[in-house]
Formats: sequence, structure tokens, C-alpha cells
Amino acid sequence: MTALARHDNRPIGIFDSGVGGLTVLQALIRQFPHESFIYLGDTARVPYGSKSARTVERYTIQVAQALLDRHVKLLVVACNTASALGLTALRRYCPTPAMGVIEPGCRLAATVSRNRCIGVIGTRSTIASQAYPQTLATIDGGIAVHSWACPLLVPLVEEGWYRHPATRLVVEESLREVPASGIDTLILGCTHYPLLRQVIQEVVGPEVQLVDSASAVARTLVGLPANLLFPAAVGQSQQITFLVTDVADRFREVAHHFLQDQTAVEQVEVIDL
Amino acid sequence: MTALARHDNRPIGIFDSGVGGLTVLQALIRQFPHESFIYLGDTARVPYGSKSARTVERYTIQVAQALLDRHVKLLVVACNTASALGLTALRRYCPTPAMGVIEPGCRLAATVSRNRCIGVIGTRSTIASQAYPQTLATIDGGIAVHSWACPLLVPLVEEGWYRHPATRLVVEESLREVPASGIDTLILGCTHYPLLRQVIQEVVGPEVQLVDSASAVARTLVGLPANLLFPAAVGQSQQITFLVTDVADRFREVAHHFLQDQTAVEQVEVIDL
Repeated sequence: MTALARHDNRPIGIFDSGVGGLTVLQALIRQFPHESFIYLGDTARVPYGSKSARTVERYTIQVAQALLDRHVKLLVVACNTASALGLTALRRYCPTPAMGVIEPGCRLAATVSRNRCIGVIGTRSTIASQAYPQTLATIDGGIAVHSWACPLLVPLVEEGWYRHPATRLVVEESLREVPASGIDTLILGCTHYPLLRQVIQEVVGPEVQLVDSASAVARTLVGLPANLLFPAAVGQSQQITFLVTDVADRFREVAHHFLQDQTAVEQVEVIDL
Repeated sequence: MTALARHDNRPIGIFDSGVGGLTVLQALIRQFPHESFIYLGDTARVPYGSKSARTVERYTIQVAQALLDRHVKLLVVACNTASALGLTALRRYCPTPAMGVIEPGCRLAATVSRNRCIGVIGTRSTIASQAYPQTLATIDGGIAVHSWACPLLVPLVEEGWYRHPATRLVVEESLREVPASGIDTLILGCTHYPLLRQVIQEVVGPEVQLVDSASAVARTLVGLPANLLFPAAVGQSQQITFLVTDVADRFREVAHHFLQDQTAVEQVEVIDL
């Protein structure tokens, strides 16, 4: 009992503009089977990726506050756009540790890349924010970065068109500059993109390594102080709570794809922000 | 001067979740060259088409109030989703006449159709609302209606992919049931779709007539009381004001497509809702 008492058994809060962050949740559930999670999808205001820094910052703080009200011990901003545009303001505002998906993704990419030439794809706002090139520069000033906005990929994923010929055409068009760029690593800078991993890999070819936020965040959390997260051996039962800001039907409908059918979405509570 | 004094020279308010309603604005500018307009695009919360009735209703009333505060004489809800889900609540709430795009579109389609078999395409929320079949039923109970949700068309239009092969594939897939349905008229139940008119017409074939909201609304306004709208002959100068709820850059960037390069978008004011 004394060993247990040293651990903090409050849940981890994860948030995203919609369903995309569920890829991060699924990676964390797998990595930390004795941690509990509260996932909040801001489905009333999705997508963030086409909105301004000012608006995304405001939304990020509102959503984080709703999770802080539920006593989370750690906030994971599992949305690239909110990480790019809202995390700095959030850290100023928030008494609880907060992490985004960009720094973990950059660290993993910098480790994986051999030629120090890295590509990033994301929403229009994420790419415009320059958050990836700036973060990569702080890790290794010698890394060359190429960025491409792919605003059509999120709608295609949301429709479940993972293997449709139209999706293939959109990916080809969006990534047409990849071969000439010389990148050997491509960061999937949006939590929706892991669902298109197969078609993206086919289009960029096997010599380009894909890095996704979900696994990168899970790797980073492993490095956190031991008294914050339960090691896998501790027998605390895992609770997963889902909150959304708009009706739950559509969320429930698509969530299982993002969770790879490994986590059931039973109760989904609708909250007002 | 006495003739002029009988007219109401307050502006007409038009609103949409984003840029789509500009197709309606352009039709009205052409039809009423002596009327002034205030266009409000709720770009911070776009799109409405994937959101719930409750949320769309709330947003519709907030946006309408912002236009009422600016003393509009008439509210045009130039968004199919807001017309489908928010107009009833808006009319209860609002002291000013309010019209949507659905009834005008249905009336025009019922006039145009010869075999009384009509198709409707729109966003997921518009189609789920059943607003088109219900409205067509009140006009003519003998009309057969086929509806198809086409959630990918708005993102493609927003990206300006009007003639891209991927767009063609998406339209073909979305409208694959049209030939077997027997419709002779197809309502473009989303203000973005007129920009895809050419590819939609190619896919459905020349024997299917396309009806769009923009021209249908303009036709309906012609029938309003003469003292509310200026006839074309009156020499009042036209003022057009643009308001958005998120940064104006992207709005300005795409607006000219929707306005067919016929109306300049100079001043765009950002407001908080």
C-alpha cells in the first residue's frame, strides 16, 4: 500500500478538436494499461485546422479548463493545430503539466532520420504556424525541413475513405513534391493521418520513414517521472471517459476506426463549453 | 422624394457558416443593384454541416442577433444547414422577416421538374434533417424525393479543386445512385455546390436539370412587398459590408471565386460572437 500511495491516481486528460486524438489515446492505453483517461473531443467546433491562432488559442484554454475541472494530473494536447497554436498560452495559464504532440514527433523524427532532411504534412494552420520547423531547429540546427499543407486529408479520413481511388489521387497531388525534396523521414503532423498510413507509404515509397504523433507521445510519456504514471505492473483498473461538445452519435460512429476496434466507446457525455 | 421615403433603405443581412453564402449574395447583388447588404460568415465555427441540430440552432440565433444589432431589414439564411436546422427557432426569436434557402429551392425545383421525381444533395446534417423532402411534400404531395449526403464536396470547393480528377471521382461516387433513381431535377442543397456545377452536370448527364439556392432565393425576393426592396430603377448607391468571426485572410482569398470576380472584397471586419 505504501508503494501505491506514492502514485498519483488521477486521470490523464487528452484533448483534440474531434476524433483524431483517439489515435494518441489508443497508443497511451496500450502503453499505460493501469492509467485512467478522460478524452475530450471539441466536436462542436471541429476542425481547428482552418482557424486562426487567436481562435485556436481561445478554444484550447476553454477545453483544457473543462479537463482541469475534472482533476486531471496531466494534459495531453493530442491535436497538432492546438499544439502548434495553443500550447504556449496553455502552459502560461495552466497549473498542471501540459504536453503537445509536436515536440515528441520532432524528437522521434530527428532520431529516425539519417540524412537530416525531414518532411512534415499537416493542416493549413499547423503548417502556417511553422511550429515543426522551429521545433526541429531547436533539436538540431542542421536539419532541413520541407512542409506541405494537406487540408483535404482530414475530411477523407472522417468519411472513412482510407483506400478510395479519390484519396489516392489527393495524396499523390498533396505529396507531389516529396520525391524531389530528398526527405528520408515524413512526420504525419495531424492525428488523422495514421489512418492513411498505407496509402501515404505507397505514394512516398518504402525508403521514406513515416513518424506519427501517437507513438511519439507514448514514447515521451515513458520518460516522465515515475511517481506521476503507473508502471504497467500496478494493478489499478483502467477507466476511460469520453466527453464531446456536440452530439455523440457521429463520434461513436467513427471512433472505433481511430481506436482500431480495441477500445469500446460506450458512454459518451455531451458537455457545453 | 416622397416615392423614395416610402422605401426602407436599411441593408439586407445575409449569413452563412463561411464563404458558401456568397453565391447567394452575388445573385442578390445582381438582382437588386440598389440594395445594400451585410454579409456575415461564421468562419470561426465553420462548417455547420457536420454539427447537431441543437448546436446549429444556437449558432444561427447568435449570428442573426449580430446582424439585427446592425439594423438589417431582412435576414437571409444563406446556408442550407442553418436553414434546415435553425430557421424555425430563428423565426420564433426574431422580429425581422427571415428567409432560408430551402423553400425557394424546393419551389423552383417543383416548377422545373416534369416527372415529379426530384433529387437533393447536401451536407450530412442538411440531408439528415429531412428538410427538403418535408418542404417538397407541402408543395406537392405527389413528388418523389431522393436525397444523398455529399460531405466531401465542401472541402474540395474550399480548396478550389473545381476541375480536379479527384473531385470528379468524389462526385461520381457520391452521385452513383442518380441514374437508377429516375430524377429529372437535382437540387444543389448547399451553397458551395454551384462552383461544381460543371462537373456535377457532366456526371448526372444533360437530361437532369440542376437547381441552385442562389438563383432560387433571388427569384423569391422579387416577390416580396414592393416597399421593402428597392426596384432596380431607384438610384440608391449600393454598399456591401463583409463580417467574419475568424481572421479575414483566407475568407478574402477564396471569396472572389464565390463572387465570380464580380464583387470586390475590400474591407472585411472580424467580430466576436
